[in-house]
Amino acid sequence: MYTIEPIGFVKNNRINIEDDYWGDVISEIIISDKISESSLKGIDGYSHLEIIFYFHLADPSEISISATHPRNNKKFPSVGIFAQRRKARPNLIGATIVKLISSVKNKLVVSGLDAVNGTPVIDIKPVLREFLPDDKIIQPEWTSEMLKNY
Amino acid sequence: MYTIEPIGFVKNNRINIEDDYWGDVISEIIISDKISESSLKGIDGYSHLEIIFYFHLADPSEISISATHPRNNKKFPSVGIFAQRRKARPNLIGATIVKLISSVKNKLVVSGLDAVNGTPVIDIKPVLREFLPDDKIIQPEWTSEMLKNY
Repeated sequence: MYTIEPIGFVKNNRINIEDDYWGDVISEIIISDKISESSLKGIDGYSHLEIIFYFHLADPSEISISATHPRNNKKFPSVGIFAQRRKARPNLIGATIVKLISSVKNKLVVSGLDAVNGTPVIDIKPVLREFLPDDKIIQPEWTSEMLKNY
Repeated sequence: MYTIEPIGFVKNNRINIEDDYWGDVISEIIISDKISESSLKGIDGYSHLEIIFYFHLADPSEISISATHPRNNKKFPSVGIFAQRRKARPNLIGATIVKLISSVKNKLVVSGLDAVNGTPVIDIKPVLREFLPDDKIIQPEWTSEMLKNY
């Protein structure tokens, strides 16, 4: 068992947990006072960041380790929790690649973060080409159908 | 403050924390008995997974929130912890995209996971094209120099 603590929080105008229409959302990430501003030094050299965050609004009683239909939609096949990105998952951790728009003092402005206002951020990592897939990505057809309004 | 628990562990032949030569490493991820085998149902429909894990061997006393030279190498500029992927970081969380080779019962075989034998895994997420950058990735030049032996 490990403990984790927010290093900052998300600030945006999205209040409700929703699955769609996140692609154009602009969010701020405010780094906590406890963490030095210099933790962001040099971050503006990157176009993309991965934000690791905590699904603080997900209901732990809904965490399933059995197979479920993504989005509770029977149109999609029943798959295990690690074959989908459902929020109610063991450890409640989210990870999203965003575009960095600006960085000033202890504040980042990013686009494409699918996290509601107030979400605790637990890590920020720069995206490096060398760590992205360099070969074809294969994924089930239903996932693209599911994400068509993302 | 949140608590997280391993959902499984890494098994491979890498014992020492090292920065380089991870690209070809083959690892197994053994899902814990507490988590149902069905948590992996359908995972073989994906070519790539993101493994979220815990840097259990990193020294918490080395966690820096001030700017440091990546790999303690003065050849690289001093940058903040969130502008680099150093292991000794707040919350000690790692995130790596790997290639899925096979999935049998409670065991995944993957390549490219930069985690030593015994590393606790805290989440597994399928990689979806829709969530990867669809525009050019910009990163500082020194990062590619640093990763040339990766």
